Amino acid sequence: MENEELDEYELQTQAIRKNMDQISRKILIMSGKGGVGKTTVTVNLANALVDMGCTVGILDTDIHGPNVAKMLGCEDGVLGSPDGKVLYPVEPREGLKVVSLAFAIPDPDAPIIWRGSMKNSAIRQFLADVEWGTLDYLLIDSPPGTGDEQLTVCQSIPELTGTIIVTTPQSVAVLDARRSVGFSRRMGVAIIGVIENMSGLVCPECKTEIPVFGIGGGQKMCQDMHVPFLGRVPMEVDLRKAEDEGEDFMKDGNTHPSRDALLEIARKINFGTACSTGRDTSFIGTPQCSPSSCAGCTSNCASRKK
Amino acid sequence: MENEELDEYELQTQAIRKNMDQISRKILIMSGKGGVGKTTVTVNLANALVDMGCTVGILDTDIHGPNVAKMLGCEDGVLGSPDGKVLYPVEPREGLKVVSLAFAIPDPDAPIIWRGSMKNSAIRQFLADVEWGTLDYLLIDSPPGTGDEQLTVCQSIPELTGTIIVTTPQSVAVLDARRSVGFSRRMGVAIIGVIENMSGLVCPECKTEIPVFGIGGGQKMCQDMHVPFLGRVPMEVDLRKAEDEGEDFMKDGNTHPSRDALLEIARKINFGTACSTGRDTSFIGTPQCSPSSCAGCTSNCASRKK
Repeated sequence: MENEELDEYELQTQAIRKNMDQISRKILIMSGKGGVGKTTVTVNLANALVDMGCTVGILDTDIHGPNVAKMLGCEDGVLGSPDGKVLYPVEPREGLKVVSLAFAIPDPDAPIIWRGSMKNSAIRQFLADVEWGTLDYLLIDSPPGTGDEQLTVCQSIPELTGTIIVTTPQSVAVLDARRSVGFSRRMGVAIIGVIENMSGLVCPECKTEIPVFGIGGGQKMCQDMHVPFLGRVPMEVDLRKAEDEGEDFMKDGNTHPSRDALLEIARKINFGTACSTGRDTSFIGTPQCSPSSCAGCTSNCASRKK
Repeated sequence: MENEELDEYELQTQAIRKNMDQISRKILIMSGKGGVGKTTVTVNLANALVDMGCTVGILDTDIHGPNVAKMLGCEDGVLGSPDGKVLYPVEPREGLKVVSLAFAIPDPDAPIIWRGSMKNSAIRQFLADVEWGTLDYLLIDSPPGTGDEQLTVCQSIPELTGTIIVTTPQSVAVLDARRSVGFSRRMGVAIIGVIENMSGLVCPECKTEIPVFGIGGGQKMCQDMHVPFLGRVPMEVDLRKAEDEGEDFMKDGNTHPSRDALLEIARKINFGTACSTGRDTSFIGTPQCSPSSCAGCTSNCASRKK
């Protein structure tokens, strides 16, 4: 007689495998410190990738502050499930599928007082039971830190393409981001690169660049730790306003330095220049990106095996 | 024969009780969203309270990003334990005792890949085994959200004086802060008040007030949810610099709008005007602050029993 509970876990693992096999690139967006803009990066990269013709899914694993839906203006979305088994994601626009705990909570004021094991179950269920379909990208937004959520994602998706680490230039944020680098390395997950967000603010009146959180701290960390740097995104009041109102900041005709920076990063990721050797990012962390294929590489890319 | 493990848990609970009995006010600093400035508030309130002659302890429960020590300039501190049982806090200045996981980690780049139950154990150990001594305040800094850390603190210290909720004015931060209010209410813990941090930035060049994260969002939430508002703290480059360098921003002679705002909040908390009826904050959440003593109160204080 077999253990029924184990069977169920095994069945779920198989469902996750089947789902993930249909998705080309699975990227975990993480940060050490909170409030550095992981969700901003996730949402705007997703919109930029869709504009490039990709199909993109977003899984919001930040159970305590699920803001992806609000920033995409689809917080009233409902996860459909006609048969009570398969969950259908919310589609705020063609080519973009979103799953967030926000959709399952009718009262936005209700706190989610969940211990770790419940969060793990929720994340696994979202990976297993959602009808993601065939996707070019799955961007997994996570809460700050290196705890339950990140562990569960890495363990449930062993073939994760890599992590994108978001930080601000501020010392305490960089200090915490170094731990995210350590986490990715310890889990054997490739680091696609680091984004320095909230990197300076240009005064809308006098155009002075104000170093609110400093400038260059994230880039310097990348040099110190030999990790690819994806770019810096300045702070902008209009970017915050677009988020508050759930508007697409990446849309055509929107000319802002922060939009240009995010678009450039999306291009780097999509067209394979995130790795400074010019290899396709889909190779990162796969056997194609093996010690031998890295041997001739002169970069200090994190996926370069020792 | 009794269960040995249970016995140990019970002994630890007794040790926590004994420790907490010597501390007048125990305050949990929380937020829904990360990066809104919980640690900034904790560190600067602590310094301000010490300046007023109080003895203050800080417990940093943010295991993934323990930045309290860095902001206090004591990141090289060591938790002493001559007998291997009692832990002695780090004292960056007279009247201030600090315990942070940062002191236990020799390598600042090492990620703390801990599941929830390990975090709970660490927090309980810090409450039980640290020689806190007699204190006027214990400020407990927490990671964002309403998860393991906050639950463990509330369950381990049933007589918690209350919570201070930190938010920025940004919609998504306020949305998450509403959940912290819901959490406090559901746990039966009084809400001492809400601080609106990063509330506008004055351009150092032209003095224009830039609404980086908006202005007034936290205050409006307090009115909507009938929760005391403690004040707004503007963003300032000098405050960030002081934190990066581990300097005391609250020290005499330091004239900054954000310092003035933090000092005013510390006064409200210490001199009992946090509750708009003028009662001493040490009453909040105690039997003195019972339904009957609240009956004549015209405020919409969270501790007012229904």
